Amino acid sequence: MAISNLQAARAAYQPKLPKALLGPVKAVEGAPTQSVGNQAEIKELFPNTYGMPVITFEAGEPVELPPFNVGIILSGGQAPGGHNVISGLFDGVKSLNPANKLYGFILGPGGLVDHNYMEITSELIDNYRNTGGFDIIGSGRTKLEEESQFEKGIQILRELGIKALVIIGGDDSNTNACVLAEYYAAKKYGVQVIGCPKTIDGDLKNEQIETSFGFDTACKTYSELIGNIQRDCNSARKYWHFIKLMGRSASHIALECALQCQPNICLVSEEVEAKAMSLDDVVTYIAEAVAARAAEGNNFGTVLIPEGIIEFIPAIKKLIAELNDVLALPEAQNITSANEQIDFVKAHISAENLAIFKSLPSDVAAQLALDRDPHGNVQVSLIETEKLLSRMVADKLAVWKKAGKFVGKFGTQHHFFGYEGRCAAPSNYDADYCYSLGYNASRLIANGKTGYMSIIKNTTAPAAEWIAGGVPITMMMNLEKRNGKMKPVIRKALVELDGAPFKFFAAHREQWAKETAYVYPGPIQYWGPTEVCDQTTKTLQLEQAK
Amino acid sequence: MAISNLQAARAAYQPKLPKALLGPVKAVEGAPTQSVGNQAEIKELFPNTYGMPVITFEAGEPVELPPFNVGIILSGGQAPGGHNVISGLFDGVKSLNPANKLYGFILGPGGLVDHNYMEITSELIDNYRNTGGFDIIGSGRTKLEEESQFEKGIQILRELGIKALVIIGGDDSNTNACVLAEYYAAKKYGVQVIGCPKTIDGDLKNEQIETSFGFDTACKTYSELIGNIQRDCNSARKYWHFIKLMGRSASHIALECALQCQPNICLVSEEVEAKAMSLDDVVTYIAEAVAARAAEGNNFGTVLIPEGIIEFIPAIKKLIAELNDVLALPEAQNITSANEQIDFVKAHISAENLAIFKSLPSDVAAQLALDRDPHGNVQVSLIETEKLLSRMVADKLAVWKKAGKFVGKFGTQHHFFGYEGRCAAPSNYDADYCYSLGYNASRLIANGKTGYMSIIKNTTAPAAEWIAGGVPITMMMNLEKRNGKMKPVIRKALVELDGAPFKFFAAHREQWAKETAYVYPGPIQYWGPTEVCDQTTKTLQLEQAK
Repeated sequence: MAISNLQAARAAYQPKLPKALLGPVKAVEGAPTQSVGNQAEIKELFPNTYGMPVITFEAGEPVELPPFNVGIILSGGQAPGGHNVISGLFDGVKSLNPANKLYGFILGPGGLVDHNYMEITSELIDNYRNTGGFDIIGSGRTKLEEESQFEKGIQILRELGIKALVIIGGDDSNTNACVLAEYYAAKKYGVQVIGCPKTIDGDLKNEQIETSFGFDTACKTYSELIGNIQRDCNSARKYWHFIKLMGRSASHIALECALQCQPNICLVSEEVEAKAMSLDDVVTYIAEAVAARAAEGNNFGTVLIPEGIIEFIPAIKKLIAELNDVLALPEAQNITSANEQIDFVKAHISAENLAIFKSLPSDVAAQLALDRDPHGNVQVSLIETEKLLSRMVADKLAVWKKAGKFVGKFGTQHHFFGYEGRCAAPSNYDADYCYSLGYNASRLIANGKTGYMSIIKNTTAPAAEWIAGGVPITMMMNLEKRNGKMKPVIRKALVELDGAPFKFFAAHREQWAKETAYVYPGPIQYWGPTEVCDQTTKTLQLEQAK
Repeated sequence: MAISNLQAARAAYQPKLPKALLGPVKAVEGAPTQSVGNQAEIKELFPNTYGMPVITFEAGEPVELPPFNVGIILSGGQAPGGHNVISGLFDGVKSLNPANKLYGFILGPGGLVDHNYMEITSELIDNYRNTGGFDIIGSGRTKLEEESQFEKGIQILRELGIKALVIIGGDDSNTNACVLAEYYAAKKYGVQVIGCPKTIDGDLKNEQIETSFGFDTACKTYSELIGNIQRDCNSARKYWHFIKLMGRSASHIALECALQCQPNICLVSEEVEAKAMSLDDVVTYIAEAVAARAAEGNNFGTVLIPEGIIEFIPAIKKLIAELNDVLALPEAQNITSANEQIDFVKAHISAENLAIFKSLPSDVAAQLALDRDPHGNVQVSLIETEKLLSRMVADKLAVWKKAGKFVGKFGTQHHFFGYEGRCAAPSNYDADYCYSLGYNASRLIANGKTGYMSIIKNTTAPAAEWIAGGVPITMMMNLEKRNGKMKPVIRKALVELDGAPFKFFAAHREQWAKETAYVYPGPIQYWGPTEVCDQTTKTLQLEQAK
C-alpha cells in the first residue's frame, strides 16, 4: 500500500491524553442525573440506565482485571478522527491487559447484525493512526432499533467474548446505543454499551459535550478553501462566490467558517427561521449587500450558505409540507405527465402556498412538484440552493438596475463543500480529542459502565488539563416526534441566537459585508508554531470564554 | 487588517535563494540562440531582441550602480506565489541601492495604460510575503498589443523614472512582454522589459523553463481535496466521484493530481486527441472500469477530468467548428425561438456532425446550439463536463445491466476545483522559486537585459544549487494562427505522451483502476519533516530523473 509522505510522517504522532488517563484511574461519581426533558417518560423507557451519575476520572490505584474483549462500530457519515477513537480505544484496552482483543464490525451497525467483523490488530491499527476516513472497518447507516437486531447482535458478541460495545456516532446513533444498553441491561446479557460523540455538523453538543469530534478538522478544511476563494475574489475583483456548506439541520459549520474567514455574508438557518424570513427576504438581504458594495466600486464578494437553509424558511417549509400531503392524495398516484402533475399541484395547494410556489424559478418549482424520494417525499436536498439564491439575486438586481438602485456588475461562481472535509486527516486537536475519547471509553468499560457516553471536557486548555469521564446518555434525552411517533432522542444542538459565537458574528457582520475584511486561514498544519497548529475552533473559544 | 495565525507565522519565513544570487553576480553568456520555429520570420519581427544568448549568473565582484526604479505588472489568472515574485524583486532592487523604488501597476496591464499605479513600500510588501493571491496590486486580462498602449505606457514609465518593467504572466503575457521589449528597444526608449513564467495550468514550460510558478501549490491543494474525497469514497463505498480540474488547454494538473493520488481513472485530453477518441469511446472507457470494479463488489471510485476534455475530442471539435460557422450565417441572425434555432442547426450541419449532435443529451445539444459568447462562439466552457460524462456513463451502464454486463450500483457525486487552488499560500517550493525568480529579475535588470525571461533551473536539487539566469523570450517562440492571422507566440506545452510523467501514469493506471490504490497527500505543510514540506511535484521529479 503506497502512502503519502505526510501520512508516513504523521503516523509517528503520539496523541496527547488528559493527565488523569496517564495512569490507573478511579471513577468519581457525581449526583444522580435527570434527562433534559420528559423526565418521567424517559425514566420509564430506561429503567436500568436512567438517573446514573456523571463520572469523572481521577488518578487511582492499579487494579488487576481479567482479560476481556471489546467491539467497535462506526455509524453514519464520516468525520475526521474516527481512526483515532479506535486507536485510543485499542491502546486503552491493551494497556489494561495485553491479552484483551478489539473487534471492529464492518460497514457500520449492519456488521453487528450480519456478524461481519474483523479483529483490529496492532499491525492493522498502526496503518491508521492519525489518518482521516472510516476506511479501517467502514461505516454504514443501518439503524439499530429492533429487538431482532439486538438479539442477532448478542449472538456474535457472545461468540467473540465481547464484554462491551463502543458505538461511534451522532445523536441518533448514540440514542440507539442507549436503547441497546438498556435492552442488554434489562435482559442481563452482561454486555455494556458506550457511545462516542461524532458529527462534523457540530450539532451533538450540550452542557456535557463540548464539541463533537471532526467538527474542528472539517471546519478548518472548509475555511482553508473559503480563504483561498476569498483571496482570489479579492485579487480578480469581479465575482461573487456563493459557497454552500454542509449542515442540513444546523448552521454550526457555516457560522464557524464565517468566524474564521470573515466573508461578506453568511446566512444562518436558525436566524432565518426565528425571524420568519421569506425567500424574498433572504434574496433581498443578499442583494442589498451586493448593491452597497457595488456603489463603492466593489463588484465582488463571498456568501456562505448552510446546506439546509431552504427548509428553515417558514413559508417554504409550509409549502413542502403541503406538497407532501397533496402528492400523497390517491388522485395524484395515476398522473403520468409532468405538466399534468404540476397542474394538479397548483390546483390542490392553498392560495398562500400557490403564491410561494409561483414565486420560485420555474425549474425549481417543477423539481419540487416532480422529484420524490423513495418515501414519496419532496426532495428538497436536490435543489442547488447556492445557484437558486444567486439567480434570484441576479433577477432582483436587474430590476434595481433599471430603477437606478444598482450600479454595478454581478458575476457569480458557485461551490459546495462537503466531501472535501469529512475525511481530512484530523487536526492536532481532533487527533488528541478523539484518541482521548477512545482511550477514555476503555476506562468506562473497565469500570463496568453502560449507557454512558465517553466525555472529554475543558478542551480549550492544554491536553494535560482535559477532564475525562462519562455521562449517562439518558441525561441528554427528551421526547420528540419522529415519523408521527414520540420517541426518546438526544436533543440536536442548533445554533443559539443568544450564544456567544452567533453574537460575535452578528456584532461584526455589517462591517464584514461593507468592507473587504477577509481572513485567509490556510491549510491545517500539523507541525509548527502552537498558535497555528493547536487552536480550537472559534466557536469553542467563544463558548468557553463566557 | 485581521490576519490568520498561519499568515502571521508564515510572514517570518525567509525564502531560499540560489547560492549565486546571495552576493554580487556576473552574467555568463552562452552562444547566440534561435527561436524554436519560424526562425527567419521571428528574427525579422524582433530585430533588436532576437538571437541573444542564454545567461547564467555566477558569483562576481560588487559593482556600484546609480539608483533606478522598476515597475511590476501581474497579468492574467492568479497563481500561488505572485506576491513572492514581487517581494523577491523588491528585496533584489533594494539590495542594489536602497534608494531604488518599485512601482506596481494596478489591476494588470491596464494599469500601465491607464497610469494607475502605487509604490510598493517596505511596510506594504511585508504584509504580503509568502501569501497567496495577487491582491497586493490586483491582476487583469488587458492585452498589451497595440502601439498606442505602448506609447501610453512610456509616458508613465518616464514620469516615474522607471528603467525596467517586469511582467508576470503566462505564455501570451510573456509574448506581449517581448513585443513591448522589442518596441521600446527599437524606439530606443531606454526601458527594459523582463518576463516571469506563471501559470497554474503548467503549460508554460520547455527546455529552458522547468516549471511555471504556482503549479506546485495548486496541484498540491487539489490533491489534498482529491485525497480527502478518495478517503471518503473508500469509507462509504457507495459513490463514484467525478472530479473536474482546471486546465482548459493542457492536462498537466489532472496528470499531476493522478500521480499524487492514484485515482481509479484520469482522463488526459492530449491522449484523447491523439487517439482520436469519440465521446462514446471516452464514456465506454469509464463505464468499463466501473463495471469491472462492480464485478468485484466495489461500487465506488474516482475519475479525474481535465476541464478542456470536450474540446480535445476530434468529433466534438469538428461539430463545434461547424456550429460556429452555421450560427454565423446571415439567415441565422433573425431566428427568435430556441426550437427554431435548434431546427436550423440540424438542417444546416453535415450528416456526420448531425449524428454527433444527436448523440449528445438533448439539454447539452440545446446548450451548444443556443448559448454563445460575445464573439458569437459556441460556449463549450458552460458545459458541466463532469455531469455530462457521469450521465452518459449511467445511461450506458443501464443498457449493460439489462444485458447482464453490469451487476452493480452506480451512484455519483460531482466536484470542480479551480478557484480553490489559484490563490493558496505558496508551498515552500513556490515560495522559494517565486522569490528567486523576482530577485533574479533585479539582476537581469542591473545587467541591462531586455526581452529576457527570468529563469531558475535545477529546482529538484536543494535551493542553494539552483541555477539562476535569463533566457531570451524570442528563443521560445514560433508562429501560430490566432484569430486567422499568423502571430509570434510562445509555444504552449501540452502533456507529452512520450514524456516520463505520462508514461509512469500509463504504466500504472490499469492497476489503479482495478485496485483501490488511493494515496492521501493531505494539506500543504510549511513546517515539519523535509520530505513532507519540500517535495517538488511528481511531474518535475519524473521529468528531471530522465
